[in-house]
Amino acid sequence: MNNFEYFAPTKVVFGKGTEKETGRLAKEFGARKVLVHYGTGSVVRSGLLDRVCDSLKEQGLPYILLGGAQPNPRLGLAREGIRICREEGVDFLLAVGGGSVLDSAKCIGYGAANEGDVWDFYCRKRKAEACLPIGCVLTIAATGSEMSDSSVITNEDGMIKRGYSSDYGRCRFAVMNPELTYTLPDWQTMSGCTDILMHTMERYFTKTPDTMLMDGMSEALMRTVIQNAKILHENPTDYDARAQVMWAGSLAHNGLLGCGNETDWASHQLEHELSGMFDVTHGAGLAAVWPSWARYVLSEKPARFAQFAVNVMGVTGDCTDPVKTALEGIREMERFFHEIGMPVNIHELGYDLTDEQIKELAYKCSFFGTRTIGGFKVLDQEDMVRIYEAAR
Amino acid sequence: MNNFEYFAPTKVVFGKGTEKETGRLAKEFGARKVLVHYGTGSVVRSGLLDRVCDSLKEQGLPYILLGGAQPNPRLGLAREGIRICREEGVDFLLAVGGGSVLDSAKCIGYGAANEGDVWDFYCRKRKAEACLPIGCVLTIAATGSEMSDSSVITNEDGMIKRGYSSDYGRCRFAVMNPELTYTLPDWQTMSGCTDILMHTMERYFTKTPDTMLMDGMSEALMRTVIQNAKILHENPTDYDARAQVMWAGSLAHNGLLGCGNETDWASHQLEHELSGMFDVTHGAGLAAVWPSWARYVLSEKPARFAQFAVNVMGVTGDCTDPVKTALEGIREMERFFHEIGMPVNIHELGYDLTDEQIKELAYKCSFFGTRTIGGFKVLDQEDMVRIYEAAR
Repeated sequence: MNNFEYFAPTKVVFGKGTEKETGRLAKEFGARKVLVHYGTGSVVRSGLLDRVCDSLKEQGLPYILLGGAQPNPRLGLAREGIRICREEGVDFLLAVGGGSVLDSAKCIGYGAANEGDVWDFYCRKRKAEACLPIGCVLTIAATGSEMSDSSVITNEDGMIKRGYSSDYGRCRFAVMNPELTYTLPDWQTMSGCTDILMHTMERYFTKTPDTMLMDGMSEALMRTVIQNAKILHENPTDYDARAQVMWAGSLAHNGLLGCGNETDWASHQLEHELSGMFDVTHGAGLAAVWPSWARYVLSEKPARFAQFAVNVMGVTGDCTDPVKTALEGIREMERFFHEIGMPVNIHELGYDLTDEQIKELAYKCSFFGTRTIGGFKVLDQEDMVRIYEAAR
Repeated sequence: MNNFEYFAPTKVVFGKGTEKETGRLAKEFGARKVLVHYGTGSVVRSGLLDRVCDSLKEQGLPYILLGGAQPNPRLGLAREGIRICREEGVDFLLAVGGGSVLDSAKCIGYGAANEGDVWDFYCRKRKAEACLPIGCVLTIAATGSEMSDSSVITNEDGMIKRGYSSDYGRCRFAVMNPELTYTLPDWQTMSGCTDILMHTMERYFTKTPDTMLMDGMSEALMRTVIQNAKILHENPTDYDARAQVMWAGSLAHNGLLGCGNETDWASHQLEHELSGMFDVTHGAGLAAVWPSWARYVLSEKPARFAQFAVNVMGVTGDCTDPVKTALEGIREMERFFHEIGMPVNIHELGYDLTDEQIKELAYKCSFFGTRTIGGFKVLDQEDMVRIYEAAR
């Protein structure tokens, strides 16, 4: 086990009816003037936004509304939010929505609490030294942004998608009512389940030895998400399945399961370029990339993939041939992705990449040839080309 | 899954050499004048106290030393600490030691930050509204006090042991270097491992349905502690086994694994009276009580104990007879306790209880006949008598 730091201070308020607690929580965490940030119509149509605003009113908290955050949230809207915060003296951000709204709120929080251009942080030119405090009411289990330190923003200028991570951006509180996720389209729910699995797998596929506790907890989480995703694919209003998946989503990405592991993140970075270029749903993009990544890197440590196959995918292990067991685990994962309607390659995702596009994706993903990605196996620009080719 | 709140804001800094970070962390969390609280000689003899104080000096942080905290920490010393904090203007507590030192520090923190008598909180007469901020350097994996909201104090007047839980008392940071636990006597290490297991089991034995994620994570943690306790019983300086157990100790009691479960805590409460009367080691006391509790309550939900038997203790399940499987799991746990030198009844713990003593224990444990204990099965004073009788 490697040395590590773990810091996940978000207060989670989980269960039926918890959105009514939002105003009380905002006040508890010091809010005096709130920017309520949300996405497109569904939180308005469902009446959730009204219920949340009513709970702010009950606490006497003034607020300003800013809707319009979209999947793969844009820098332009965040800049608008930053302007409003500065002009109106907003001191607390309340995100009502999913990962995109939350990531947009984090970007607003960094921009409003620091001088200069917020895009600098996402380009790694400098580090944020503060963030406006953020609370959230979560409406989809997926990105784990409600407890994580990370946010991802797309700059419309070149459609460049970049992530930034900082403890300053972690939510002060997260309200999670699984019932709020009942009305999600199946595609969104299944993409969310895939994202949750992948947050765990990016940490689980490691060459760090002696990780028994984190291995076992990660495997339990993955088995839980796989079983409950299948239930939700058939019955989207199964409360307990929604609850298991929603809590798993937070634990998959709050930093817990990577403690002491060298982590990977190559699949995420390969996918970020895809969804920057084509605006695909993040989870589905991950499903389209992962099998090809897995087969490309497997030989680094076949035993790790064999452990995954046996402990997560229920494959009967063949001790004499870990590679065979490992490959069967990857095939089982592909069968699961198909069972819940996810793609296992980029063609199934709906795009047929040209050679030129693959070169462009790898060029962007390698930060114009300046970085490698991956921890399980370090991948350079040429490796990225090969994985995109295998995945197309 | 029930509704729940989860809040574990402690920043964990884990691994080799991390005690050198103590001063930096204290400063990061706002310390200006520190009370360094510790126990008896070992942290002095090992040089740990000097290294920690050096890191405070490097940050220019003035500090006052208060040693003398003992196992089952006493109210008297905490009152002395409260007096010092008030007179000297201490604004940060640094606990260097194990659960007893930490619990003593929490008691000091509550007393120094609130008016009136600190014992009121432990008697449940009123609730603390603040606590001095606390950091810790942990020297034993056991109580989980480094991330938990709980503390346990013994009032010398009547030798009454009482716990108090509040989010205010959670540590701001916890420095955890597994190497610091190498020199612990085997008895302490194994009692610690037992305590960690029991923190998990108190949450795991629940009748709440649909707890798949927490079940799987708890089972992984218990398997990890059982396997690594056996390793440490043979080789106390195995770093990775120390590390697995230490991290498990924090996760077993930071609130995570009970999320959405109705919890139990009867074994802990039965043991508190034992160690109040006899000053036994907490973990060993739990091992002496648990098997009798388990057999007494098993019929409430045999399937739960059968699941434990199969998924944690490696028993081959007999689907036609869950009670048989359940009982075999309890016997396997007793075999494990014996293998690591723990008792499985109060006689083996070193005490032969008289009928009068059993009556007194049950009388105190029921708060003089005014409360029941337990969630898996609610136990009244008469039930407590029967479990103590079975355990003697």
